Amino acid sequence: MTQPTSAPAHPFDQALALTPRAPGVYDGHPHPAYANMVGPYGGITAAQMLQSVLLHPGLLGEPVALTVNFAAGLRDAPFVLEARPARTNRSTQHWTMALRQSGPDGGEETMITATAVTAARRVTWSATDTPMPAAPLPAHVARQPLPELLPTAFMNRYDMRPVTGHIPRAWDGAESDSTTQLWMRDDPPRPLDFASLTALADLFFPRVWRRRAMPTPAGTVSMTVYYHARGGDLAARGSGYLLGQARAQSFFNGFFDQSAELWSQAGQLLATTHQIVYYKE
Amino acid sequence: MTQPTSAPAHPFDQALALTPRAPGVYDGHPHPAYANMVGPYGGITAAQMLQSVLLHPGLLGEPVALTVNFAAGLRDAPFVLEARPARTNRSTQHWTMALRQSGPDGGEETMITATAVTAARRVTWSATDTPMPAAPLPAHVARQPLPELLPTAFMNRYDMRPVTGHIPRAWDGAESDSTTQLWMRDDPPRPLDFASLTALADLFFPRVWRRRAMPTPAGTVSMTVYYHARGGDLAARGSGYLLGQARAQSFFNGFFDQSAELWSQAGQLLATTHQIVYYKE
Repeated sequence: MTQPTSAPAHPFDQALALTPRAPGVYDGHPHPAYANMVGPYGGITAAQMLQSVLLHPGLLGEPVALTVNFAAGLRDAPFVLEARPARTNRSTQHWTMALRQSGPDGGEETMITATAVTAARRVTWSATDTPMPAAPLPAHVARQPLPELLPTAFMNRYDMRPVTGHIPRAWDGAESDSTTQLWMRDDPPRPLDFASLTALADLFFPRVWRRRAMPTPAGTVSMTVYYHARGGDLAARGSGYLLGQARAQSFFNGFFDQSAELWSQAGQLLATTHQIVYYKE
Repeated sequence: MTQPTSAPAHPFDQALALTPRAPGVYDGHPHPAYANMVGPYGGITAAQMLQSVLLHPGLLGEPVALTVNFAAGLRDAPFVLEARPARTNRSTQHWTMALRQSGPDGGEETMITATAVTAARRVTWSATDTPMPAAPLPAHVARQPLPELLPTAFMNRYDMRPVTGHIPRAWDGAESDSTTQLWMRDDPPRPLDFASLTALADLFFPRVWRRRAMPTPAGTVSMTVYYHARGGDLAARGSGYLLGQARAQSFFNGFFDQSAELWSQAGQLLATTHQIVYYKE
Protein backbone atom coordinates (compact mmCIF):
# COMPACT_ATOMS: atom_id res chain seq x y z
CA MET A 1 0.00 0.00 0.00
CA THR A 2 1.13 3.49 -0.66
CA GLN A 3 1.28 6.02 2.16
CA PRO A 4 -1.78 8.26 2.35
CA THR A 5 -1.05 11.64 0.81
CA SER A 6 -0.26 14.17 3.50
CA ALA A 7 -2.90 16.73 4.47
CA PRO A 8 -2.62 20.05 2.61
CA ALA A 9 -0.06 22.21 4.40
CA HIS A 10 -1.29 25.11 6.54
CA PRO A 11 -1.37 28.34 4.48
CA PHE A 12 1.32 29.73 6.77
CA ASP A 13 3.64 26.84 5.91
CA GLN A 14 2.84 27.29 2.23
CA ALA A 15 3.74 30.98 2.54
CA LEU A 16 6.99 30.11 4.34
CA ALA A 17 8.08 27.69 1.61
CA LEU A 18 11.44 28.92 0.30
CA THR A 19 13.29 26.92 -2.34
CA PRO A 20 17.07 26.81 -1.77
CA ARG A 21 19.07 27.75 -4.84
CA ALA A 22 22.39 27.70 -2.95
CA PRO A 23 23.23 27.76 0.80
CA GLY A 24 21.41 30.83 2.13
CA VAL A 25 19.91 31.82 -1.25
CA TYR A 26 16.22 31.05 -1.78
CA ASP A 27 13.52 31.49 -4.40
CA GLY A 28 10.11 32.52 -3.11
CA HIS A 29 6.85 34.23 -4.02
CA PRO A 30 4.30 36.24 -1.99
CA HIS A 31 1.39 33.95 -1.01
CA PRO A 32 -2.15 35.07 -1.94
CA ALA A 33 -3.55 33.85 1.41
CA TYR A 34 -1.58 36.62 3.16
CA ALA A 35 -2.27 39.48 0.72
CA ASN A 36 -2.81 42.92 2.24
CA MET A 37 -4.14 46.05 0.50
CA VAL A 38 -0.87 46.72 -1.32
CA GLY A 39 1.48 43.73 -1.41
CA PRO A 40 1.62 41.03 1.28
CA TYR A 41 0.97 41.45 5.01
CA GLY A 42 4.21 42.77 6.55
CA GLY A 43 4.16 40.08 9.23
CA ILE A 44 4.40 37.30 6.66
CA THR A 45 7.34 39.04 4.99
CA ALA A 46 9.06 39.39 8.38
CA ALA A 47 8.47 35.67 9.00
CA GLN A 48 10.00 34.83 5.61
CA MET A 49 13.07 36.92 6.41
CA LEU A 50 13.52 34.99 9.67
CA GLN A 51 12.84 31.69 7.92
CA SER A 52 15.77 32.33 5.56
CA VAL A 53 18.00 32.20 8.65
CA LEU A 54 16.24 29.23 10.26
CA LEU A 55 16.67 27.17 7.06
CA HIS A 56 20.37 28.05 6.69
CA PRO A 57 22.65 24.99 7.04
CA GLY A 58 25.13 27.05 9.11
CA LEU A 59 22.60 28.24 11.72
CA LEU A 60 23.84 28.52 15.32
CA GLY A 61 21.18 28.46 18.05
CA GLU A 62 17.78 30.13 18.06
CA PRO A 63 16.52 33.67 17.33
CA VAL A 64 17.26 36.41 19.85
CA ALA A 65 16.60 39.53 17.71
CA LEU A 66 15.25 40.39 14.25
CA THR A 67 15.01 43.75 12.49
CA VAL A 68 13.19 43.98 9.15
CA ASN A 69 13.23 47.14 7.03
CA PHE A 70 10.38 47.48 4.51
CA ALA A 71 12.12 49.44 1.77
CA ALA A 72 9.40 48.91 -0.86
CA GLY A 73 6.05 47.16 -1.25
CA LEU A 74 6.57 43.66 -2.69
CA ARG A 75 5.19 42.93 -6.16
CA ASP A 76 3.06 39.84 -6.77
CA ALA A 77 6.06 38.23 -8.45
CA PRO A 78 8.96 35.91 -7.62
CA PHE A 79 11.65 37.09 -5.25
CA VAL A 80 15.16 36.00 -4.27
CA LEU A 81 15.96 36.04 -0.56
CA GLU A 82 19.54 35.88 0.63
CA ALA A 83 20.70 35.23 4.22
CA ARG A 84 24.36 35.57 5.10
CA PRO A 85 26.08 34.93 8.45
CA ALA A 86 28.08 38.16 8.85
CA ARG A 87 29.86 36.80 11.92
CA THR A 88 29.76 33.59 13.91
CA ASN A 89 31.02 33.71 17.49
CA ARG A 90 31.23 30.94 20.07
CA SER A 91 27.61 31.24 21.18
CA THR A 92 26.10 34.03 19.02
CA GLN A 93 25.68 34.57 15.28
CA HIS A 94 24.94 37.79 13.38
CA TRP A 95 22.96 37.70 10.14
CA THR A 96 22.24 40.08 7.27
CA MET A 97 19.41 39.39 4.86
CA ALA A 98 18.04 40.97 1.69
CA LEU A 99 15.00 40.27 -0.48
CA ARG A 100 15.18 41.34 -4.12
CA GLN A 101 12.73 41.40 -7.04
CA SER A 102 13.08 42.27 -10.71
CA GLY A 103 12.20 45.89 -11.30
CA PRO A 104 10.10 47.33 -14.14
CA ASP A 105 13.26 47.77 -16.25
CA GLY A 106 14.41 44.19 -15.60
CA GLY A 107 17.11 45.19 -13.09
CA GLU A 108 17.26 43.70 -9.61
CA GLU A 109 15.82 45.91 -6.84
CA THR A 110 16.23 45.58 -3.08
CA MET A 111 12.76 45.46 -1.51
CA ILE A 112 13.53 44.36 2.07
CA THR A 113 16.68 44.42 4.22
CA ALA A 114 17.02 42.71 7.58
CA THR A 115 19.43 41.68 10.31
CA ALA A 116 19.11 38.97 12.94
CA VAL A 117 20.96 37.65 15.97
CA THR A 118 20.77 33.99 16.93
CA ALA A 119 22.33 32.38 19.99
CA ALA A 120 22.87 29.07 21.70
CA ARG A 121 21.22 30.05 24.99
CA ARG A 122 22.23 28.65 28.34
CA VAL A 123 19.81 28.36 31.23
CA THR A 124 20.30 31.36 33.57
CA TRP A 125 18.46 33.30 36.25
CA SER A 126 15.38 34.68 34.47
CA ALA A 127 12.56 37.07 35.37
CA THR A 128 9.77 39.08 33.78
CA ASP A 129 9.22 42.73 34.66
CA THR A 130 6.10 43.15 32.51
CA PRO A 131 3.38 40.79 33.78
CA MET A 132 0.45 39.96 31.52
CA PRO A 133 -2.46 42.35 32.09
CA ALA A 134 -5.72 40.88 33.35
CA ALA A 135 -8.08 40.00 30.49
CA PRO A 136 -11.21 37.88 30.05
CA LEU A 137 -10.57 34.43 28.54
CA PRO A 138 -10.48 34.31 24.71
CA ALA A 139 -13.67 32.21 24.64
CA HIS A 140 -15.45 35.12 26.34
CA VAL A 141 -14.28 37.74 23.86
CA ALA A 142 -16.00 38.24 20.50
CA ARG A 143 -13.95 37.68 17.37
CA GLN A 144 -13.32 40.84 15.38
CA PRO A 145 -15.37 40.73 12.15
CA LEU A 146 -13.68 41.43 8.84
CA PRO A 147 -13.75 45.16 8.08
CA GLU A 148 -16.52 46.11 5.67
CA LEU A 149 -14.57 48.74 3.80
CA LEU A 150 -11.19 47.12 3.24
CA PRO A 151 -11.32 43.36 3.74
CA THR A 152 -7.97 41.78 2.89
CA ALA A 153 -7.04 38.13 2.50
CA PHE A 154 -4.57 37.99 5.39
CA MET A 155 -7.22 39.03 7.93
CA ASN A 156 -8.90 35.66 7.34
CA ARG A 157 -5.70 33.98 8.46
CA TYR A 158 -5.89 35.38 12.00
CA ASP A 159 -8.41 34.93 14.78
CA MET A 160 -8.33 38.33 16.52
CA ARG A 161 -10.32 39.01 19.69
CA PRO A 162 -9.88 42.62 20.85
CA VAL A 163 -10.13 43.10 24.61
CA THR A 164 -9.52 46.87 24.70
CA GLY A 165 -8.72 49.50 22.08
CA HIS A 166 -10.88 48.36 19.17
CA ILE A 167 -10.58 49.72 15.67
CA PRO A 168 -12.70 52.89 15.88
CA ARG A 169 -16.36 52.18 15.13
CA ALA A 170 -16.90 55.77 14.03
CA TRP A 171 -14.18 57.62 12.10
CA ASP A 172 -15.11 60.87 13.79
CA GLY A 173 -11.68 62.23 14.68
CA ALA A 174 -12.31 61.67 18.41
CA GLU A 175 -8.81 61.38 19.88
CA SER A 176 -8.14 58.69 22.46
CA ASP A 177 -5.26 56.66 23.84
CA SER A 178 -3.30 54.46 21.44
CA THR A 179 -3.41 51.16 23.37
CA THR A 180 -4.93 47.89 22.11
CA GLN A 181 -5.05 44.50 23.86
CA LEU A 182 -6.22 41.46 21.92
CA TRP A 183 -6.13 37.69 21.87
CA MET A 184 -4.66 36.37 18.64
CA ARG A 185 -3.83 33.10 16.92
CA ASP A 186 -3.47 31.59 13.46
CA ASP A 187 -6.63 30.53 11.61
CA PRO A 188 -6.75 27.60 11.15
CA PRO A 189 -4.93 27.05 14.46
CA ARG A 190 -1.28 26.03 14.07
CA PRO A 191 1.41 25.19 16.66
CA LEU A 192 3.44 28.28 17.49
CA ASP A 193 7.05 28.61 16.34
CA PHE A 194 9.51 31.48 15.87
CA ALA A 195 8.23 32.25 12.36
CA SER A 196 4.55 32.44 13.32
CA LEU A 197 5.38 34.42 16.49
CA THR A 198 7.19 36.91 14.23
CA ALA A 199 4.16 37.24 11.95
CA LEU A 200 1.84 37.73 14.96
CA ALA A 201 4.10 40.54 16.22
CA ASP A 202 2.92 42.71 13.30
CA LEU A 203 -0.81 42.06 13.74
CA PHE A 204 -1.82 45.29 15.48
CA PHE A 205 -3.67 47.74 13.23
CA PRO A 206 -1.95 51.13 12.82
CA ARG A 207 -1.88 52.99 16.15
CA VAL A 208 -2.72 56.27 14.39
CA TRP A 209 -6.18 54.87 13.54
CA ARG A 210 -6.83 54.17 17.21
CA ARG A 211 -5.30 57.41 18.42
CA ARG A 212 -7.00 59.72 15.96
CA ALA A 213 -10.10 57.93 14.62
CA MET A 214 -9.28 59.20 11.14
CA PRO A 215 -8.80 56.89 8.12
CA THR A 216 -5.08 57.49 7.67
CA PRO A 217 -2.81 55.65 5.19
CA ALA A 218 0.00 54.02 7.17
CA GLY A 219 2.69 51.39 6.62
CA THR A 220 5.47 49.85 8.69
CA VAL A 221 8.95 51.08 7.74
CA SER A 222 11.10 49.12 10.20
CA MET A 223 10.19 46.42 12.73
CA THR A 224 12.23 44.74 15.48
CA VAL A 225 11.35 41.60 17.45
CA TYR A 226 13.15 40.40 20.59
CA TYR A 227 12.49 36.73 21.46
CA HIS A 228 12.25 35.72 25.12
CA ALA A 229 11.53 31.99 24.79
CA ARG A 230 13.05 28.79 23.49
CA GLY A 231 11.57 26.98 20.51
CA GLY A 232 10.55 24.24 22.91
CA ASP A 233 8.53 26.75 24.98
CA LEU A 234 6.68 27.87 21.85
CA ALA A 235 5.93 24.31 20.72
CA ALA A 236 4.73 23.37 24.22
CA ARG A 237 2.21 26.19 24.06
CA GLY A 238 0.57 24.45 21.09
CA SER A 239 -1.97 26.38 19.05
CA GLY A 240 -3.54 28.40 21.86
CA TYR A 241 -4.09 32.15 21.91
CA LEU A 242 -1.49 34.83 22.65
CA LEU A 243 -2.37 38.06 24.40
CA GLY A 244 -0.92 41.04 22.56
CA GLN A 245 -0.68 44.61 23.81
CA ALA A 246 0.47 47.56 21.70
CA ARG A 247 0.77 51.32 22.12
CA ALA A 248 2.43 54.28 20.45
CA GLN A 249 4.70 56.74 22.19
CA SER A 250 5.25 59.43 19.58
CA PHE A 251 3.50 60.56 16.40
CA PHE A 252 5.83 63.07 14.74
CA ASN A 253 5.84 64.51 11.23
CA GLY A 254 4.86 61.42 9.31
CA PHE A 255 6.19 58.59 11.51
CA PHE A 256 4.90 57.02 14.72
CA ASP A 257 6.41 54.27 16.86
CA GLN A 258 4.70 51.21 18.29
CA SER A 259 5.84 49.05 21.20
CA ALA A 260 4.12 45.75 21.89
CA GLU A 261 4.31 42.61 24.03
CA LEU A 262 3.07 39.08 23.31
CA TRP A 263 2.30 36.66 26.17
CA SER A 264 1.25 33.03 26.09
CA GLN A 265 -2.17 32.42 27.62
CA ALA A 266 -0.34 31.05 30.67
CA GLY A 267 1.36 34.45 31.06
CA GLN A 268 4.88 33.84 29.68
CA LEU A 269 6.22 36.92 27.90
CA LEU A 270 7.31 35.36 24.59
CA ALA A 271 8.34 38.45 22.63
CA THR A 272 8.63 42.22 22.81
CA THR A 273 8.44 44.10 19.51
CA HIS A 274 8.84 47.63 18.24
CA GLN A 275 8.22 49.34 14.94
CA ILE A 276 8.28 52.71 13.26
CA VAL A 277 5.40 53.39 10.92
CA TYR A 278 4.87 55.92 8.14
CA TYR A 279 1.58 57.83 8.22
CA LYS A 280 0.15 60.44 5.90
CA GLU A 281 -1.20 63.76 7.18
CA MET B 1 46.45 89.68 12.12
CA THR B 2 45.96 86.01 11.62
CA GLN B 3 42.80 84.34 12.86
CA PRO B 4 43.20 82.69 16.23
CA THR B 5 43.56 78.93 15.87
CA SER B 6 40.26 77.23 16.43
CA ALA B 7 39.59 75.67 19.83
CA PRO B 8 40.36 71.94 20.07
CA ALA B 9 37.37 69.98 18.81
CA HIS B 10 35.06 68.41 21.37
CA PRO B 11 36.11 64.80 22.10
CA PHE B 12 32.80 63.65 20.63
CA ASP B 13 33.60 65.37 17.32
CA GLN B 14 37.09 63.89 17.39
CA ALA B 15 35.56 60.43 17.90
CA LEU B 16 33.11 61.02 15.04
CA ALA B 17 35.86 61.98 12.60
CA LEU B 18 35.67 59.55 9.68
CA THR B 19 38.01 59.97 6.71
CA PRO B 20 36.29 59.28 3.37
CA ARG B 21 38.21 56.86 1.19
CA ALA B 22 35.43 56.70 -1.44
CA PRO B 23 31.73 57.72 -1.35
CA GLY B 24 30.31 55.87 1.68
CA VAL B 25 33.62 54.20 2.62
CA TYR B 26 35.48 55.67 5.59
CA ASP B 27 38.62 55.05 7.62
CA GLY B 28 38.27 55.46 11.37
CA HIS B 29 39.71 54.45 14.73
CA PRO B 30 38.16 54.00 18.20
CA HIS B 31 38.79 57.14 20.28
CA PRO B 32 40.49 56.72 23.69
CA ALA B 33 38.20 59.33 25.29
CA TYR B 34 35.25 56.94 24.84
CA ALA B 35 36.96 53.69 25.90
CA ASN B 36 34.87 51.25 27.94
CA MET B 37 36.10 48.20 29.86
CA VAL B 38 36.52 46.11 26.70
CA GLY B 39 36.60 48.16 23.50
CA PRO B 40 34.82 51.49 23.04
CA TYR B 41 31.49 52.58 24.60
CA GLY B 42 28.72 51.08 22.44
CA GLY B 43 26.97 54.45 22.16
CA ILE B 44 29.96 56.01 20.40
CA THR B 45 30.09 53.10 17.96
CA ALA B 46 26.36 53.50 17.26
CA ALA B 47 26.94 57.22 16.65
CA GLN B 48 29.76 56.43 14.22
CA MET B 49 27.51 54.01 12.32
CA LEU B 50 24.89 56.77 11.96
CA GLN B 51 27.56 59.31 11.05
CA SER B 52 28.60 57.17 8.07
CA VAL B 53 25.09 57.78 6.70
CA LEU B 54 24.96 61.48 7.63
CA LEU B 55 28.27 62.11 5.82
CA HIS B 56 27.20 60.24 2.66
CA PRO B 57 26.92 62.54 -0.39
CA GLY B 58 23.72 60.75 -1.47
CA LEU B 59 21.84 61.23 1.83
CA LEU B 60 18.10 61.91 1.60
CA GLY B 61 16.47 63.60 4.60
CA GLU B 62 17.13 62.97 8.28
CA PRO B 63 17.28 59.84 10.49
CA VAL B 64 14.05 58.04 11.34
CA ALA B 65 15.40 54.67 12.53
CA LEU B 66 18.76 53.05 13.28
CA THR B 67 19.58 49.47 14.27
CA VAL B 68 23.15 48.56 15.27
CA ASN B 69 24.26 44.97 15.86
CA PHE B 70 27.38 44.53 18.01
CA ALA B 71 28.81 41.36 16.48
CA ALA B 72 32.21 41.63 18.19
CA GLY B 73 34.11 43.93 20.54
CA LEU B 74 36.16 46.46 18.54
CA ARG B 75 39.93 46.28 18.78
CA ASP B 76 42.00 49.40 19.52
CA ALA B 77 42.97 49.50 15.86
CA PRO B 78 41.90 51.14 12.58
CA PHE B 79 38.55 50.20 11.06
CA VAL B 80 36.82 50.62 7.72
CA LEU B 81 33.18 51.66 7.85
CA GLU B 82 30.97 51.30 4.77
CA ALA B 83 27.49 52.82 4.30
CA ARG B 84 25.42 51.88 1.28
CA PRO B 85 21.98 53.17 0.23
CA ALA B 86 20.14 49.87 -0.37
CA ARG B 87 17.12 51.70 -1.77
CA THR B 88 16.17 55.33 -2.35
CA ASN B 89 12.46 56.14 -2.67
CA ARG B 90 10.77 59.47 -3.24
CA SER B 91 10.83 60.51 0.42
CA THR B 92 12.57 57.64 2.26
CA GLN B 93 15.96 55.97 2.00
CA HIS B 94 17.12 52.60 3.39
CA TRP B 95 20.75 52.06 4.42
CA THR B 96 22.97 49.11 5.27
CA MET B 97 26.27 49.63 7.06
CA ALA B 98 29.17 47.44 8.16
CA LEU B 99 32.31 48.10 10.19
CA ARG B 100 35.30 45.84 9.59
CA GLN B 101 38.72 45.41 11.18
CA SER B 102 41.73 43.26 10.35
CA GLY B 103 41.64 40.02 12.28
CA PRO B 104 44.54 38.30 14.06
CA ASP B 105 45.33 36.35 10.88
CA GLY B 106 45.29 39.50 8.73
CA GLY B 107 41.89 38.75 7.19
CA GLU B 108 39.03 41.26 7.28
CA GLU B 109 36.38 40.60 9.96
CA THR B 110 32.90 42.10 10.31
CA MET B 111 32.63 43.65 13.79
CA ILE B 112 29.40 45.68 13.51
CA THR B 113 26.41 45.57 11.14
CA ALA B 114 23.68 48.19 10.99
CA THR B 115 20.68 49.44 9.05
CA ALA B 116 19.08 52.88 8.98
CA VAL B 117 16.08 54.64 7.52
CA THR B 118 16.21 58.32 6.64
CA ALA B 119 13.32 60.43 5.35
CA ALA B 120 12.44 63.87 4.08
CA ARG B 121 9.73 64.55 6.68
CA ARG B 122 6.71 66.69 6.03
CA VAL B 123 4.93 68.60 8.77
CA THR B 124 1.86 66.59 9.89
CA TRP B 125 -0.47 66.22 12.83
CA SER B 126 1.78 65.17 15.72
CA ALA B 127 1.24 64.04 19.31
CA THR B 128 3.08 62.39 22.20
CA ASP B 129 1.50 59.54 24.16
CA THR B 130 4.34 59.24 26.67
CA PRO B 131 4.69 62.50 28.61
CA MET B 132 7.91 63.23 30.47
CA PRO B 133 7.71 62.03 34.10
CA ALA B 134 7.99 64.63 36.84
CA ALA B 135 11.57 65.04 38.04
CA PRO B 136 13.52 67.62 40.06
CA LEU B 137 15.60 70.04 37.96
CA PRO B 138 19.08 68.80 36.98
CA ALA B 139 20.70 71.49 39.13
CA HIS B 140 18.98 69.93 42.15
CA VAL B 141 20.18 66.38 41.44
CA ALA B 142 23.67 65.23 42.42
CA ARG B 143 26.00 64.12 39.68
CA GLN B 144 26.80 60.41 39.74
CA PRO B 145 30.42 59.94 40.84
CA LEU B 146 32.73 57.73 38.79
CA PRO B 147 32.50 54.13 39.99
CA GLU B 148 35.37 53.19 42.31
CA LEU B 149 35.77 49.64 41.04
CA LEU B 150 35.59 50.02 37.27
CA PRO B 151 36.15 53.62 36.18
CA THR B 152 36.24 53.85 32.39
CA ALA B 153 37.22 56.77 30.18
CA PHE B 154 33.82 57.25 28.53
CA MET B 155 32.09 57.88 31.87
CA ASN B 156 34.06 61.14 32.12
CA ARG B 157 32.42 62.23 28.86
CA TYR B 158 28.90 62.24 30.32
CA ASP B 159 27.29 64.26 33.08
CA MET B 160 24.79 61.77 34.57
CA ARG B 161 22.39 62.77 37.33
CA PRO B 162 20.26 59.81 38.45
CA VAL B 163 16.78 60.74 39.69
CA THR B 164 15.54 57.21 40.45
CA GLY B 165 16.99 53.72 40.04
CA HIS B 166 20.64 54.33 40.96
CA ILE B 167 23.39 51.81 40.38
CA PRO B 168 23.05 49.56 43.46
CA ARG B 169 25.10 50.89 46.37
CA ALA B 170 25.35 47.40 47.85
CA TRP B 171 25.74 44.36 45.61
CA ASP B 172 23.67 42.28 47.97
CA GLY B 173 21.40 40.46 45.52
CA ALA B 174 18.36 42.40 46.72
CA GLU B 175 15.97 42.27 43.74
CA SER B 176 14.08 45.42 42.77
CA ASP B 177 12.43 46.97 39.76
CA SER B 178 14.55 47.62 36.67
CA THR B 179 13.69 51.29 36.06
CA THR B 180 16.15 54.20 36.04
CA GLN B 181 15.47 57.89 35.36
CA LEU B 182 18.40 60.27 34.94
CA TRP B 183 19.39 63.63 33.55
CA MET B 184 22.21 63.31 31.04
CA ARG B 185 24.34 65.45 28.76
CA ASP B 186 27.76 65.52 27.14
CA ASP B 187 30.73 66.67 29.23
CA PRO B 188 31.95 69.17 28.24
CA PRO B 189 28.47 70.35 27.12
CA ARG B 190 27.94 70.19 23.35
CA PRO B 191 24.92 71.16 21.18
CA LEU B 192 22.72 68.13 20.59
CA ASP B 193 22.53 66.50 17.15
CA PHE B 194 21.43 63.12 15.80
CA ALA B 195 24.84 61.55 16.43
CA SER B 196 25.09 62.65 20.08
CA LEU B 197 21.44 61.75 20.71
CA THR B 198 22.27 58.25 19.42
CA ALA B 199 25.22 57.95 21.78
CA LEU B 200 23.11 59.14 24.73
CA ALA B 201 20.51 56.45 23.93
CA ASP B 202 22.99 53.79 25.11
CA LEU B 203 23.96 55.51 28.38
CA PHE B 204 21.86 53.44 30.81
CA PHE B 205 23.89 50.94 32.86
CA PRO B 206 22.82 47.30 32.35
CA ARG B 207 19.29 46.75 33.67
CA VAL B 208 20.33 43.42 35.18
CA TRP B 209 22.58 45.28 37.66
CA ARG B 210 19.62 47.34 38.84
CA ARG B 211 17.19 44.44 38.85
CA ARG B 212 19.39 41.94 40.64
CA ALA B 213 22.06 43.89 42.56
CA MET B 214 24.65 41.33 41.47
CA PRO B 215 27.84 42.24 39.56
CA THR B 216 26.90 40.59 36.26
CA PRO B 217 28.90 40.80 33.01
CA ALA B 218 26.60 42.23 30.31
CA GLY B 219 26.92 43.71 26.83
CA THR B 220 24.52 45.11 24.23
CA VAL B 221 23.97 42.77 21.28
CA SER B 222 21.54 44.83 19.19
CA MET B 223 20.22 48.37 19.64
CA THR B 224 17.49 50.32 17.82
CA VAL B 225 16.79 54.07 17.97
CA TYR B 226 13.66 55.77 16.63
CA TYR B 227 14.03 59.54 16.15
CA HIS B 228 11.04 61.79 16.84
CA ALA B 229 12.52 65.23 16.13
CA ARG B 230 14.05 67.27 13.36
CA GLY B 231 17.70 68.24 13.39
CA GLY B 232 16.54 71.82 13.92
CA ASP B 233 14.68 70.79 17.08
CA LEU B 234 17.83 69.19 18.44
CA ALA B 235 20.01 72.18 17.64
CA ALA B 236 17.44 74.56 19.19
CA ARG B 237 17.68 72.60 22.42
CA GLY B 238 21.34 73.59 22.70
CA SER B 239 23.53 71.79 25.20
CA GLY B 240 20.95 71.35 27.97
CA TYR B 241 20.12 68.12 29.77
CA LEU B 242 17.93 65.30 28.50
CA LEU B 243 15.78 63.20 30.81
CA GLY B 244 16.22 59.49 30.11
CA GLN B 245 14.08 56.67 31.42
CA ALA B 246 14.88 52.97 30.91
CA ARG B 247 13.44 49.63 32.02
CA ALA B 248 13.65 45.95 31.16
CA GLN B 249 10.69 43.75 30.34
CA SER B 250 12.21 40.27 30.18
CA PHE B 251 15.38 38.61 31.46
CA PHE B 252 15.51 35.19 29.83
CA ASN B 253 18.34 32.66 29.54
CA GLY B 254 21.19 35.05 28.93
CA PHE B 255 19.48 38.02 27.23
CA PHE B 256 17.37 40.87 28.58
CA ASP B 257 15.65 43.68 26.73
CA GLN B 258 15.68 47.40 27.55
CA SER B 259 13.22 50.06 26.41
CA ALA B 260 13.99 53.73 26.99
CA GLU B 261 12.80 57.24 26.21
CA LEU B 262 14.77 60.50 25.95
CA TRP B 263 13.04 63.86 26.46
CA SER B 264 14.39 67.38 26.15
CA GLN B 265 14.25 69.36 29.39
CA ALA B 266 11.22 71.17 27.93
CA GLY B 267 9.44 67.79 27.64
CA GLN B 268 9.72 66.97 23.91
CA LEU B 269 10.11 63.21 23.36
CA LEU B 270 13.19 63.21 21.10
CA ALA B 271 13.85 59.47 20.77
CA THR B 272 12.63 56.06 21.87
CA THR B 273 15.19 53.28 21.95
CA HIS B 274 15.32 49.54 22.53
CA GLN B 275 18.08 47.02 22.95
CA ILE B 276 18.73 43.36 23.69
CA VAL B 277 21.62 42.70 26.02
CA TYR B 278 23.66 39.60 26.77
CA TYR B 279 24.15 38.77 30.44
CA LYS B 280 26.06 35.98 32.14
CA GLU B 281 24.38 33.79 34.80
